Amino acid sequence: MLDTAKIVNDPVHGFVRLPAGRVLKVLSHPIVQRLRRISQLGLAHFVYPGATHTRFLHALGVMHLADEALSILSRKGVKLSKETWEAVLLAALLHDIGHSPFSHSLEKYILPLSHEEIGYACLSLLEDSVGTLTEVRSLWEGDHPLTFLCELIASQLDVDRLDYLVRDSFFTGVQEGLVGTERLIHTMTVVNNHLVVEEKGQNSAEKFIVTRRFMYWQVYLHKGVLGAEWLLQRWWRAMEVAAPPFFLESRKKLSEQGIPYFLRIDESTLWGWIHYGVESDFLPLRVLSRALLERIPYKLRPIVEQESYLERERWLNSLSPHLRPWWEWFWAEGWAESKAYEPSSGKDIYILTKGGDVKALVELSPWLPALNEPMRRFFAGGIPAAFLEWLSR
Amino acid sequence: MLDTAKIVNDPVHGFVRLPAGRVLKVLSHPIVQRLRRISQLGLAHFVYPGATHTRFLHALGVMHLADEALSILSRKGVKLSKETWEAVLLAALLHDIGHSPFSHSLEKYILPLSHEEIGYACLSLLEDSVGTLTEVRSLWEGDHPLTFLCELIASQLDVDRLDYLVRDSFFTGVQEGLVGTERLIHTMTVVNNHLVVEEKGQNSAEKFIVTRRFMYWQVYLHKGVLGAEWLLQRWWRAMEVAAPPFFLESRKKLSEQGIPYFLRIDESTLWGWIHYGVESDFLPLRVLSRALLERIPYKLRPIVEQESYLERERWLNSLSPHLRPWWEWFWAEGWAESKAYEPSSGKDIYILTKGGDVKALVELSPWLPALNEPMRRFFAGGIPAAFLEWLSR
Amino acid sequence: MLDTAKIVNDPVHGFVRLPAGRVLKVLSHPIVQRLRRISQLGLAHFVYPGATHTRFLHALGVMHLADEALSILSRKGVKLSKETWEAVLLAALLHDIGHSPFSHSLEKYILPLSHEEIGYACLSLLEDSVGTLTEVRSLWEGDHPLTFLCELIASQLDVDRLDYLVRDSFFTGVQEGLVGTERLIHTMTVVNNHLVVEEKGQNSAEKFIVTRRFMYWQVYLHKGVLGAEWLLQRWWRAMEVAAPPFFLESRKKLSEQGIPYFLRIDESTLWGWIHYGVESDFLPLRVLSRALLERIPYKLRPIVEQESYLERERWLNSLSPHLRPWWEWFWAEGWAESKAYEPSSGKDIYILTKGGDVKALVELSPWLPALNEPMRRFFAGGIPAAFLEWLSR
Amino acid sequence: MLDTAKIVNDPVHGFVRLPAGRVLKVLSHPIVQRLRRISQLGLAHFVYPGATHTRFLHALGVMHLADEALSILSRKGVKLSKETWEAVLLAALLHDIGHSPFSHSLEKYILPLSHEEIGYACLSLLEDSVGTLTEVRSLWEGDHPLTFLCELIASQLDVDRLDYLVRDSFFTGVQEGLVGTERLIHTMTVVNNHLVVEEKGQNSAEKFIVTRRFMYWQVYLHKGVLGAEWLLQRWWRAMEVAAPPFFLESRKKLSEQGIPYFLRIDESTLWGWIHYGVESDFLPLRVLSRALLERIPYKLRPIVEQESYLERERWLNSLSPHLRPWWEWFWAEGWAESKAYEPSSGKDIYILTKGGDVKALVELSPWLPALNEPMRRFFAGGIPAAFLEWLSR
Repeated sequence: MLDTAKIVNDPVHGFVRLPAGRVLKVLSHPIVQRLRRISQLGLAHFVYPGATHTRFLHALGVMHLADEALSILSRKGVKLSKETWEAVLLAALLHDIGHSPFSHSLEKYILPLSHEEIGYACLSLLEDSVGTLTEVRSLWEGDHPLTFLCELIASQLDVDRLDYLVRDSFFTGVQEGLVGTERLIHTMTVVNNHLVVEEKGQNSAEKFIVTRRFMYWQVYLHKGVLGAEWLLQRWWRAMEVAAPPFFLESRKKLSEQGIPYFLRIDESTLWGWIHYGVESDFLPLRVLSRALLERIPYKLRPIVEQESYLERERWLNSLSPHLRPWWEWFWAEGWAESKAYEPSSGKDIYILTKGGDVKALVELSPWLPALNEPMRRFFAGGIPAAFLEWLSR
Repeated sequence: MLDTAKIVNDPVHGFVRLPAGRVLKVLSHPIVQRLRRISQLGLAHFVYPGATHTRFLHALGVMHLADEALSILSRKGVKLSKETWEAVLLAALLHDIGHSPFSHSLEKYILPLSHEEIGYACLSLLEDSVGTLTEVRSLWEGDHPLTFLCELIASQLDVDRLDYLVRDSFFTGVQEGLVGTERLIHTMTVVNNHLVVEEKGQNSAEKFIVTRRFMYWQVYLHKGVLGAEWLLQRWWRAMEVAAPPFFLESRKKLSEQGIPYFLRIDESTLWGWIHYGVESDFLPLRVLSRALLERIPYKLRPIVEQESYLERERWLNSLSPHLRPWWEWFWAEGWAESKAYEPSSGKDIYILTKGGDVKALVELSPWLPALNEPMRRFFAGGIPAAFLEWLSR
Repeated sequence: MLDTAKIVNDPVHGFVRLPAGRVLKVLSHPIVQRLRRISQLGLAHFVYPGATHTRFLHALGVMHLADEALSILSRKGVKLSKETWEAVLLAALLHDIGHSPFSHSLEKYILPLSHEEIGYACLSLLEDSVGTLTEVRSLWEGDHPLTFLCELIASQLDVDRLDYLVRDSFFTGVQEGLVGTERLIHTMTVVNNHLVVEEKGQNSAEKFIVTRRFMYWQVYLHKGVLGAEWLLQRWWRAMEVAAPPFFLESRKKLSEQGIPYFLRIDESTLWGWIHYGVESDFLPLRVLSRALLERIPYKLRPIVEQESYLERERWLNSLSPHLRPWWEWFWAEGWAESKAYEPSSGKDIYILTKGGDVKALVELSPWLPALNEPMRRFFAGGIPAAFLEWLSR
Repeated sequence: MLDTAKIVNDPVHGFVRLPAGRVLKVLSHPIVQRLRRISQLGLAHFVYPGATHTRFLHALGVMHLADEALSILSRKGVKLSKETWEAVLLAALLHDIGHSPFSHSLEKYILPLSHEEIGYACLSLLEDSVGTLTEVRSLWEGDHPLTFLCELIASQLDVDRLDYLVRDSFFTGVQEGLVGTERLIHTMTVVNNHLVVEEKGQNSAEKFIVTRRFMYWQVYLHKGVLGAEWLLQRWWRAMEVAAPPFFLESRKKLSEQGIPYFLRIDESTLWGWIHYGVESDFLPLRVLSRALLERIPYKLRPIVEQESYLERERWLNSLSPHLRPWWEWFWAEGWAESKAYEPSSGKDIYILTKGGDVKALVELSPWLPALNEPMRRFFAGGIPAAFLEWLSR
């Protein structure tokens, strides 16, 4: 176990210890501090006003759970060098380092790269300050010789998921999202270099999968949240069309400097642009900017895709003539889907039975895949006409 | 809404208000106060040492949730007379009044009556003190003209279940048992005289069913808990065989006086008998009594029924010769099963869709019945030989 | 009680109901929505990373507690018209409407007005949309004929304090900040037109005062938090000295348009300016801007004021020559003080004894004023030299 | 750190690990298992119906906190042998082993010995099973060479107090009783062989003292709780007067066999006696027994001692003639007092300042002793006449 340098209060996990050494150095790096200005759930606070927690806090939480898991595994006889222990903490802490402002909502919009691609680039930038991060990279890539550590960082039951379910539950106030994080971590063990859950944790593992599905519909794909995220994406398109000078300059720098410039853009930057949009001559940008500032998302409803035209007609008819030409900016439709659990993909949670066998959870709980079916829904809706009038004045 | 007479602290729901009038009178009746000496979960505290909460506290909680539900329904336009409101609170408060000491474990052992049968008899006894309880009776029997009130008291999603899931979760420390009680109650409404859940509560209703299933395996049918309950039942049989004078006398009075005498027996009475058992000449009673006092339950394992004889052989071979003749007292096997959700029975939770239709939850969430399959498990095991030596000294 | 229009999840109080009518209209007004971009605790998240909750959420919470208190008072026989009930909710909801970005840290910096003065101006602006708010104004000014309602909104034990203590405790993770909000509200009653606490709430009222004092030192005046707030204030001064064009223009508009322009400035605006500061030619602005982005506050220590020069000398000697000329920008010292409880001011919490008398809490708990003494501390410290090197590169 | 053998769910602290070796052996000993049938707070559940938690659960919690504290101290460089670590856990686990049924209420009634005296005797009994416990004894007696370990077990800020405050708060539902256990334990360190709290824990230490005082009045010395405890003590006296045969026999065995026989008496035994009391010919015993079963305590009020005769007269006049001769059994009066904090006794909490000095908390927080003044109150009251009629029928 690494020595403790500092302790930080996390309302979710209690006291989180920050080990001395490279972890503390990485933590204070501007690239990591930037995560303080990236919200964990984008615009979900439109629906759940408590959900203003940041990627930074989540990153601390994931690191904490990794540290807890390693402590428990080491008490069960797993031996790790200090270097590897530190690498696991760093791999956990940095796992989301490449996220855009508003997290998933604008991923690939600002730069045409996934957050994983940006994450690897960040690792290289950090190496200039803190030395080689080869072991972190191999934990991310899944080719570290201690496979169970890779699984701790990224798998069906990794510390990322364990943290975000309980954390998002805490800050949204959706109590049903609580999972038995502590139990799951206490029942983890290592068999044949793989991370498995002891049989007494099987119920909790099942519960974890069900809860994750629940949180998708109740929070991540809530129609109000989707309506806000789609609004933000459309706003970005309007910005590209209006193309004000500062935006063009920013895009130029992005293409010239790439990731280092990207990392200077955070949510305050974007909100600054939204404020500018309010004064644009381009009506859609003006309306969408104000809609973001005044919390007026697309009012989506789950419907049958084939019937979306009916909804749309009804809404179109409510618009006043001067707004109709712009209607496509103020209407949204599309699919939302989530995969709570995909044992078919060859990835599953593995259970160590009392008899000593390792079995896939899907074998022990054959009802679980049934959960997967209806995880796709079609939504459509527009900004209500009365609000559009107000926003376009 | 009834006037508040007193307020009581409930660690689960916060402040519970006790309305003036008949509720307060019933609450202070010896028949209800007796529930202070009946534990909610029998011997589950053998496994979860915090689970010492009583039927009395649960009864308060159920009444509180009923009161909350009526407040919310009345804000949605449901009109109720004060008499009916009070009757609903009493029906909730008294729903478990007929429970034996150790609740389900010894049901029908002390008197050959179910707790519902005893409950009706208690109602008659209470009427001597507080006047007619006809409306309570009709709420229990399901023939009250306001059907939704019957459903609030007893259905797939009644205030009983809403309270016990969250309460048992709280006291055992099994956090995964939390359900969104508050959300479910806030989304209840009445359509065509039936209690339904608004669509925005559908996720929570699904979650409720899954959680209930979870709590069955994690708590109610936990093998350690089963091992303790079966031990208690076997202890009762040993008592019947040994038949000490005070026990015979008590049985005589039970058959003569019936329920009024039954109601004077609580868990302290039974523990008193267990203390006596320690000094019995009948070895099985002596061993089982000490096993209860020293928390040494049958050590059960889930196995295939056909293989139980293998387990048994192995265990039998470990016993010393002087104990073998008594082996049947110290070995247990049997099925445990639970029905989390049975839409097939014609009873389901009903959802009021945004479109105004009422649909069974099973239609909207066709994966739910899949949960039902593996809810039956066979367990077998004995008191470990080393402990038997100790207990029989 | 007003009809419920919507329900919102608050992780602190659970479900918060939003009544139909003017409350909903006010809530969706841009002036109120702006509070979503004002943090409740300024830069306290530098120390407590969970503390990213907003003034908007706090405003909802205060309104909720006011609604709860009115419900309880009305069950105790206090009669209120619907108009007055709504006015109380609005007075609660809007009580902080005039706050600057970063709340108290920059109060009077952007406009030379207190948040109360701006609050009254906001009321006038809102009246254009929702009609007269005269009763709200009289509740704020304390001259409403129902004095107890004024006290509910602003007094030693008002719903503002009840909400922020428990909320700040929740989001910082400082569990000791919890107060018995529910108990205090349940024990409120009205005597001679004044709000008083029934004797059974006296312990909780004492506890509330002690807790408030605790939260001052543990959170609001934590040296890390002070170090961040002073940094922000100094950054503003640097901005005034550097005076970049956009800043001058903004000041011009502020002086021309006043409050309506002020209300378009939120924390994202300020963070945008901080981003600009990074590229300034003025070294102090550059350093302080980066210090804010990278979370490097003044490292304060509580010391005796007379000895601050010693601290300062030590720190100055550690600076490299090129930074010394600018030292005053990077060093901070001053007093922090808090008044937990000031019964001497003629304002106290009043207790209704069982005997029917109303007594000031200070009479019943004469030890309380002792709490007041040491609520003043002197702090001094600078940005550590090593960090200054880094920031000024 | 000791290896983990088992894990137990504690609703307060989460997962509590039980180390292999002697701890597990001691834990399963009948003397310790007996604590499952001793409630932590006696009859406090008369007022707080959730407070049915046991001494057993508290003992586990104290051991857990001791284990946590040792882990944290060892990360700060304190070295301990495995034997000493185990001894500390045992000293914590067993600290309340000598408690009577109903804890403090009946201390010295059943046997004329304090719970500490009985505790030492229990230690000797346990040594027969698990070997020498000399080191545990020296930790209790305060003469262990590592003084800070003695202080961890028994001092103004020991793990006993840290556990019971938070636990009693949890089970009563009195949220204000929460203390920052985690913070306090994390800020403990050792200076000159003494346990001290680092300066950053000073606020929490102050808060701990204030909270303890609060819990005294809100729970431990609540007039309803006192009324129940005094009832129980009076009931014991009535039993001594009535002296039924089984009681005489039990007393005889107590005087012959002493502590081993005492340890077979638990709360179920006492409740059994209360049940017998209901059928006694001795009216006071009959009434008091029923009062306990039906939860009808003395109805106490805090008054000036000199005026108790007025209260008594008023109450006496309400009694019917046939009850007056027995009045002394049904009336109670006396002092209750608590000492939250007694720095004057030479025992205080010590703070390690940032400057490296160790100071008594009373020096740093001179307002603390003011808390001590009004911790004594006189109470008087009787069983209400109407209830007496009912109980004596």
